[in-house]
Amino acid sequence: MGFESLMIRLELSHGKASFGDVASTVSRCGGDVVAVDVIRSGSSNSVRDITVQMGPDGYERTIEALKLLDGINVINVSDRTFLAHLGGKVSIRPTMQIKNRDDLSRVYTPGVARVCMAIAADPKKVYNLTIKRNTVAVVTDGTAVLGLGDIGPGAAAPVMEGKAMLFKQLADVDAFPICLDTKDTEEIIRIVKAISPIFGGINLEDISSPRCFEIERRLQEELDIPIFHDDQHGTAIVVVAGLINALKVIGKRMEELRVVVNGIGAAGVSICKMLLAAGVKRLVPIDQCGVIVRGGAYDHPMWQWLADQAQVESQPGNLSSAIEGADVFIGVSRAGVLSVADVRKMADHPIVFAMANPEPEISPEEALPFVRIFATGRSDYPNQINNLLVFPGIFRGALDCRASSINETMKLAAAKAIAEVVSEPELNEQYIIPSIFNEQVVVKVREAVIRAAITTGIAKRIPPDFRDTTEEKGGISHTAGHA
Amino acid sequence: MGFESLMIRLELSHGKASFGDVASTVSRCGGDVVAVDVIRSGSSNSVRDITVQMGPDGYERTIEALKLLDGINVINVSDRTFLAHLGGKVSIRPTMQIKNRDDLSRVYTPGVARVCMAIAADPKKVYNLTIKRNTVAVVTDGTAVLGLGDIGPGAAAPVMEGKAMLFKQLADVDAFPICLDTKDTEEIIRIVKAISPIFGGINLEDISSPRCFEIERRLQEELDIPIFHDDQHGTAIVVVAGLINALKVIGKRMEELRVVVNGIGAAGVSICKMLLAAGVKRLVPIDQCGVIVRGGAYDHPMWQWLADQAQVESQPGNLSSAIEGADVFIGVSRAGVLSVADVRKMADHPIVFAMANPEPEISPEEALPFVRIFATGRSDYPNQINNLLVFPGIFRGALDCRASSINETMKLAAAKAIAEVVSEPELNEQYIIPSIFNEQVVVKVREAVIRAAITTGIAKRIPPDFRDTTEEKGGISHTAGHA
Repeated sequence: MGFESLMIRLELSHGKASFGDVASTVSRCGGDVVAVDVIRSGSSNSVRDITVQMGPDGYERTIEALKLLDGINVINVSDRTFLAHLGGKVSIRPTMQIKNRDDLSRVYTPGVARVCMAIAADPKKVYNLTIKRNTVAVVTDGTAVLGLGDIGPGAAAPVMEGKAMLFKQLADVDAFPICLDTKDTEEIIRIVKAISPIFGGINLEDISSPRCFEIERRLQEELDIPIFHDDQHGTAIVVVAGLINALKVIGKRMEELRVVVNGIGAAGVSICKMLLAAGVKRLVPIDQCGVIVRGGAYDHPMWQWLADQAQVESQPGNLSSAIEGADVFIGVSRAGVLSVADVRKMADHPIVFAMANPEPEISPEEALPFVRIFATGRSDYPNQINNLLVFPGIFRGALDCRASSINETMKLAAAKAIAEVVSEPELNEQYIIPSIFNEQVVVKVREAVIRAAITTGIAKRIPPDFRDTTEEKGGISHTAGHA
Repeated sequence: MGFESLMIRLELSHGKASFGDVASTVSRCGGDVVAVDVIRSGSSNSVRDITVQMGPDGYERTIEALKLLDGINVINVSDRTFLAHLGGKVSIRPTMQIKNRDDLSRVYTPGVARVCMAIAADPKKVYNLTIKRNTVAVVTDGTAVLGLGDIGPGAAAPVMEGKAMLFKQLADVDAFPICLDTKDTEEIIRIVKAISPIFGGINLEDISSPRCFEIERRLQEELDIPIFHDDQHGTAIVVVAGLINALKVIGKRMEELRVVVNGIGAAGVSICKMLLAAGVKRLVPIDQCGVIVRGGAYDHPMWQWLADQAQVESQPGNLSSAIEGADVFIGVSRAGVLSVADVRKMADHPIVFAMANPEPEISPEEALPFVRIFATGRSDYPNQINNLLVFPGIFRGALDCRASSINETMKLAAAKAIAEVVSEPELNEQYIIPSIFNEQVVVKVREAVIRAAITTGIAKRIPPDFRDTTEEKGGISHTAGHA
């Protein structure tokens, strides 16, 4: 990670301590004072911000050493991660500067009234004349944030802002964080419906299971803009993309696989659904209660849905028994649940996607000698299953064609598009998933999503690059206007 | 206004019409074709966007002439106002570019988790580590938009976006439009409360009376961020600012005035309240039912509040009788309700603020011979009462000092600050209100609002420029950090 900057605010009591004491203490701990700002200076003491450069392992030691100095009071410490968050990570940019009264009268009263009336007369025009066509709400209730659990809507905000940054940088989508101070399913549904007029799509984020299923389903039924719970489908789409490429490497077909999915929460359910859509014929979903079997009766509505699927196996058991002879293990569960003994019971050319965070279901060191292809959610091993590969392109495509939803066909198309970014010559055990910095990902996902939306009849607009220019068309409705 | 651009999308049937016909028709109508873009070109016809420059009075004539041409089909017409709205008027800007995996791991997983946990451990840190400290929701239900009435949340969006532009340009406040698809008072209150974690303030906008009173009051009671219904208080603050300066010109004092306020809706109520706070001793509120009298009984809660005030007159009547001997007429009602005969019955040096939109209560041409000082809401006469003078500075100040509300003291301070921007030598009958482009307005309003917030004990933070640097302070809590 290299050297990091640390900003330390400290109070010096004059006569007891000097700034030289501070600087030499920092040096002794392996750091370097690169900047000093005096915040206030009084007769008996002063407050300064010192910027220190050092390796992250020296942080704690330096702070502790400074605290031990007589006459020094450490008020606050910020590292680069915290500094990157100061004041938040997104801001609002007007599309034009208002330079004079003419400009003002166009974008505000009185001119804006004509634009309002044009939308009132033809509500479709909201897509041309407002930010709706490019704007997505990133909605959370803060109940299932990263691996941190229910930390609340305010504490969840930095994740939503990070997502908004990525939406903009990777796909030029304007996303705004909506952090809801309620956990009530019906209220969340009502709120998202009520705020939807200005949004072209809704990205649900970090909402705990099983409420997330009902919230997503109902919103999609009751709104005509795309709703996408990233924790479910983002992960599922990358898993299927990785699996498609893994099969190319080992030479098996989707239809002949026996797949164990361990952890049937938000992501696990969506992974199971997408695997079935992708052609998997033998599926073994497992949660803490053991194998979810065909014909079983379950309270959890999505487990019941799985129990009703012909491709789900009917043999009861647990992970240790079910793993025997499996071609693929997909874990979205907990660290360490998969043992070396389990992996050794799998079929030839085992594929293991161990995506528990931050520690996977089995460590790469343990697994690698016995598996053919291994993937995790982590950036420090090859084959990172990262939903960053999905949401920018999915929404870019859905917005561009004004899809009324993001259906299974579009999700599968996105998975195939991600897989195709890795060309056949590049493909190998260590490289089944493209880099998140590969610019082709958004381009290919967008194209695939738009094509699938058009094919399945849910695109309300044909983007210019999908229009056949020689073909006669009835109406062109993608520009604003009156008269 | 000068020459405007007009964009016309038209379809030419080949063989029937040529582009030369179009260009010569435009010229004949006084316009000039300055750009042509071919949108599609087929064997039998083609679609082109032509950009035409001409005075606005030639618009209709040109379009009509083009429609009469054989083989020409006018698909769409956009003028500069519509073009300025294409795709909306604000976008999201990330505060930094994510250039590599180090950057990514700071602003998103895994680094962001530490920031989330810091907020979870100390919820106040949401102000430092997210966009909250600079972000305002511009909330509407679309029920009272400009003079257009209940046009709905989507059609209201261009006004909210315009407001967001102005917030940013004038006061560097990040404002985001929230357009609610509900008119239910309780539901609006619940929704705004639920979305409040990411917002440092709420600007209510274009919500119809009397629901706006309850919504604002309840939100302010139940949230600790400032709530400000601009239609009420923005107008009231500028009215009081204008009145302060008008009195300097004519040499009367607030305490000796008899003031008629006509139209006791959202703005009228707030104007009455602020006039009382400013020291007015004789107030005559009038609505369509006639004079609202002291001691009367009214269903409307705010009218009843007025009827309970000692300064409100007890003499029943209507505008025509009440205006007799009044020093000031303030209209937020309807065009033409004030006659020349009414104005001639006023006391010496009459002050008339006729703010009905778009046509004032009495036209300037009729009023000016008989009034000393005249103001309207319009930009084409002197003395424009424009709440653009208020909301940027009010929120800049409230955010900078983390005021928990915007109280009457702060509003009155804002009015005085606006008045003071016009210096005594500049002051005259035609110039009692500063220009909306005067950069001193935001600066002065911000200062006055912060000082008033500190004085009234509702500031949760002392901004750096209000800190006495030689004074010892207990804790400094305006930076982020851990450890």
